Amino acid sequence: MIVKKPSDVPAVPVEMEGANKVTVRVMFGPKDKAPTFAMRIFELAGGGNTPYHKHPFEHEAVILSGDIALVTPDGDKPVAVGDVVLVMPDEIHAFKNRSDTEPASLMCLVPVEYQK
Amino acid sequence: MIVKKPSDVPAVPVEMEGANKVTVRVMFGPKDKAPTFAMRIFELAGGGNTPYHKHPFEHEAVILSGDIALVTPDGDKPVAVGDVVLVMPDEIHAFKNRSDTEPASLMCLVPVEYQK
Repeated sequence: MIVKKPSDVPAVPVEMEGANKVTVRVMFGPKDKAPTFAMRIFELAGGGNTPYHKHPFEHEAVILSGDIALVTPDGDKPVAVGDVVLVMPDEIHAFKNRSDTEPASLMCLVPVEYQK
Repeated sequence: MIVKKPSDVPAVPVEMEGANKVTVRVMFGPKDKAPTFAMRIFELAGGGNTPYHKHPFEHEAVILSGDIALVTPDGDKPVAVGDVVLVMPDEIHAFKNRSDTEPASLMCLVPVEYQK
């Protein structure tokens, strides 16, 4: 069994195209020999967002803090702390911090084979 | 995309042998056509615990509220709100509410084929 605090794992800038002011902590992934899925915490600085993109695997996410919107082809949908989100494979999406000044964060899980 | 609040999903008593004063909300699972993994929220009333058991699949868990201990063959290990836990396949474990009076909760994810 492995127990970690978020502060045990470094927050690394997300370098993907379209990512803006966002860092990631890989809480569990291939290095932990996680068998099936990977757990990451994304932190969005004021005005930050994850890439608006799609991919062949799902997300399951939990809103942890701040004022976040789920960006979809149908517009932005505000989500509250504690809300959970299932993004299906090939759905276009992003997570956006609606505040220009305050940070926000979410947990996002993916199948482990997609976690570098 | 599906967005839910915990209160959108009924809390159902966990009937497994060894479960004590614990309910579960299946936030994402087979009914949502989650492709790879299932997300559940467990709520432990004062004095409650999940079964002390093992199984051939992993858990990834997040402590959401309250005063919880991870029960292991090496004894009880207190975990804090925000801590994350990886229980490997076939590791014996339980989650126990250390308070006799206050509730506690955690999110726990498993491969979707093991979620009824």
